Amino acid sequence: MFESAEIGHSIDKETYDAAVPELREALLQAQYRLKAQAQFPVLILINGIEGAGKGETIKLLNEWMDPRLIRVDSFDVPSDEELARPLAWRFWRRLPPKGHTGIFFGNWYSKMLEDRVHGRIKDAELKLATARAQRLERMLCDEGTLIFKFWFHLSKERMNARLDSLKNDPLHSWRISALDWQQSKTYDKFVHHGEKILRLSSRDFAPWYVIEGADERYRSLTVGRILLEGLQAALAAVEQPEPVTSQPHSAPLQIDLDHLSLLDSLDMGQKLGKEDYQQQLVAEQARLSQLLRDPRLRKRGVLALFEGHDAAGKGSAIRRVTGALDPRMYRTVQIAAPSDEERAQPWLWRFWRNVPERGKFTIFDRSWYGRVLVERVEGFCTPDEWLRAYAEINDFEEQLIDADVVLVKFWLTIDKKTQLKRFKEREETPFKRFKITEEDWRNRERWDDYGHAVADMVDRTSTEIAPWTLVEANDKRFARVKVLRTLNEALEASIDKGR
Amino acid sequence: MFESAEIGHSIDKETYDAAVPELREALLQAQYRLKAQAQFPVLILINGIEGAGKGETIKLLNEWMDPRLIRVDSFDVPSDEELARPLAWRFWRRLPPKGHTGIFFGNWYSKMLEDRVHGRIKDAELKLATARAQRLERMLCDEGTLIFKFWFHLSKERMNARLDSLKNDPLHSWRISALDWQQSKTYDKFVHHGEKILRLSSRDFAPWYVIEGADERYRSLTVGRILLEGLQAALAAVEQPEPVTSQPHSAPLQIDLDHLSLLDSLDMGQKLGKEDYQQQLVAEQARLSQLLRDPRLRKRGVLALFEGHDAAGKGSAIRRVTGALDPRMYRTVQIAAPSDEERAQPWLWRFWRNVPERGKFTIFDRSWYGRVLVERVEGFCTPDEWLRAYAEINDFEEQLIDADVVLVKFWLTIDKKTQLKRFKEREETPFKRFKITEEDWRNRERWDDYGHAVADMVDRTSTEIAPWTLVEANDKRFARVKVLRTLNEALEASIDKGR
Repeated sequence: MFESAEIGHSIDKETYDAAVPELREALLQAQYRLKAQAQFPVLILINGIEGAGKGETIKLLNEWMDPRLIRVDSFDVPSDEELARPLAWRFWRRLPPKGHTGIFFGNWYSKMLEDRVHGRIKDAELKLATARAQRLERMLCDEGTLIFKFWFHLSKERMNARLDSLKNDPLHSWRISALDWQQSKTYDKFVHHGEKILRLSSRDFAPWYVIEGADERYRSLTVGRILLEGLQAALAAVEQPEPVTSQPHSAPLQIDLDHLSLLDSLDMGQKLGKEDYQQQLVAEQARLSQLLRDPRLRKRGVLALFEGHDAAGKGSAIRRVTGALDPRMYRTVQIAAPSDEERAQPWLWRFWRNVPERGKFTIFDRSWYGRVLVERVEGFCTPDEWLRAYAEINDFEEQLIDADVVLVKFWLTIDKKTQLKRFKEREETPFKRFKITEEDWRNRERWDDYGHAVADMVDRTSTEIAPWTLVEANDKRFARVKVLRTLNEALEASIDKGR
Repeated sequence: MFESAEIGHSIDKETYDAAVPELREALLQAQYRLKAQAQFPVLILINGIEGAGKGETIKLLNEWMDPRLIRVDSFDVPSDEELARPLAWRFWRRLPPKGHTGIFFGNWYSKMLEDRVHGRIKDAELKLATARAQRLERMLCDEGTLIFKFWFHLSKERMNARLDSLKNDPLHSWRISALDWQQSKTYDKFVHHGEKILRLSSRDFAPWYVIEGADERYRSLTVGRILLEGLQAALAAVEQPEPVTSQPHSAPLQIDLDHLSLLDSLDMGQKLGKEDYQQQLVAEQARLSQLLRDPRLRKRGVLALFEGHDAAGKGSAIRRVTGALDPRMYRTVQIAAPSDEERAQPWLWRFWRNVPERGKFTIFDRSWYGRVLVERVEGFCTPDEWLRAYAEINDFEEQLIDADVVLVKFWLTIDKKTQLKRFKEREETPFKRFKITEEDWRNRERWDDYGHAVADMVDRTSTEIAPWTLVEANDKRFARVKVLRTLNEALEASIDKGR
């Protein structure tokens, strides 16, 4: 969930200085339009890691925008008056009215997260609190509120570096009240439980935006742009001939400011020599075959799914996985266009029907992620549909995990040049020609759209319970061994957990 | 929640025989239209009390409708295949395709309810299971499914009578597998936890319909009519020029078949003589004054709200409550049209701002129930809005209860004749003339609409944690004493609970 926010996003001063005046002007205009319409309020929730620039960003937004139309509330220790009433009263009394913007620091999520990190509540209560928050946000959205939820993130290394630098800065040192942040345990717990909250509460009507907080210019511009685009979309929706009453969230999931995407951050040069490959392949295949026979896995289903760029080598990687297995030990499910029968059902139905039984190994060659990849990019489903699909997928996968399924998800990635080379090879080799179609060339034209879709997908569905493994597949040998090794490690880990 | 299903609804044979042919014809037509459109599936969930006619009703529906387009599934003991997969797999594999109808006996609610009744899970897990069910139903609804949830109800006396009669019937005796149903404890637990499930899971997109199951003709016709009207509304929505994709639930909440409504079932002849009244009034007022000073109430807010027909005597009843109190001990909140400031907020905001503090007593003269009464009947809000308001109100009241507020809700009811008499009196008495307006006369013309709205309101928001008290107010003296006594009893009960 935090993958894209740990790759070192940054923006140089020149670009920043050039972008800011226009952004400020547009934000102000949107704000005045919001005020003039007075059709809906905007609510911004701020959460995340200490030192990731939460306070600074809000301060900046207040400078950029008209502060008379923004109210910032920080909910720390409740007052006597607040303690005398139901918990939510303190939030209700501060809700921004139509036409205005409210920024909530230390909101309902901070409370439940802190309680969980300090062991005051357990997982079941955290889940109940998240469900309660969802009902509140759904109601606010039904009543017209446009909700933005920002999670400011830092990798542990960057957080430590940043807290160090702030400590020496006389202007900022007062902030480090929470010195124990630098104890690595606090960070780990915070991120672990925070990730759970984000997974459970990122819904189409109020999604989370994870912002990498290390670079001040990057985080400021990103937050500003997300606000602007979401605001403009909502304002336009209200001005339509048949205005919508509740605010569906239409801010873009990714603002591609520094053109640094998760996939670009991979080291695509990784390779494996022929000899090493042969050796490692055979070893990993033997290990897999043995693991799958382990009696301790008999109570668990295993599900490996493969997604990737066209010509990234999904098929050949799958063949290396199955190469050393008895055909009775696994089943491969090929996902193509849905059948008539499948189209008459909710979209997840065709995946549910293929869920592995306990003790069985199922390989998905493409998967339910088609919903947020090809169906999104090609417009086979509406934005409403693919926006809610992230939460539906997370719900689905949570049910798999709850049923003890070992779930391993691979995205095989190649760069654009490598794809071109492979496409041409396929065209030139008679027995490979069937593999390349007009459609592949068309998809290639949408390379960047697919890139954004993949980054969104990983950000929203790579969860602690079901993480994505990104496989650098320019070198097929490297990719195949990485796939097998990852799968084996997941199986071993699940055996070690010993349920 | 079960109030309207314990008043002895019934339909005579003649009416039934006259209504059935037309209903069957219309149901069949709707079914074929559903099949021809093939735009959405229908899912019917069946739950409720043993002996309330669940099985019989479904059998009948199968006779009335085309069974080729209906599939009934009963989910009892899971099969080996089902046990080998995630819990929900068994439901997914049986989902009806578009154009078809699926009837689920023993669905997700039965499982969680049984687990709770038998102590296998606790309240927190029940709440989590309900939240999970909500996510599933929301997803199904977003994917187009039209969901009906029926709870077949019987009062404990009627259940016992019915189970006795079935026992002696050779055709039915096999059904009484669950003999322990007749142990009064099972019934109580079942209804207690069932009510909680209904409260938490009755949402606008998939509301519960509570059906009184004692009279076979009544329950058959009622279920048939609810299905028919919901189905016709959904079919029409799809056939519109801009068809809706997800199915908002538009079946009527009440089907007024036997013209027996909750309010009609009250004994409106109850009276109190002048002397008794004086005596009891003074006693109850003194008791209230004492109770409100009890130190054990200092940690609890008290909230009494008054709704009722025009001229039912809300004002004078409230004056009798406050009559013996020091003005510093209470606050009265008059709810009229919202102010500009309130209109710029979610609709519940103006009630949240007036929530009592711990140790304080607040009286609401009219309340948040205006949303589902006057605003519904007069069209001040859309059906979408008042339909979701029931769940929003239940969420709100749950938060009050969680914050230890003692919540007492009164509906003061008079009959139409008494209202007319009082209206005329007001017109003829100079100092009362200000109390009667054109609007009162207009409301009177919608007497029946208000009656339906009240019955829906009580059925959907009279919960174990926040029950409605219906006050027979033809006799003002009787009403005033009942109000005071009910309030005092609620306060005493909350002191006894001693938190």
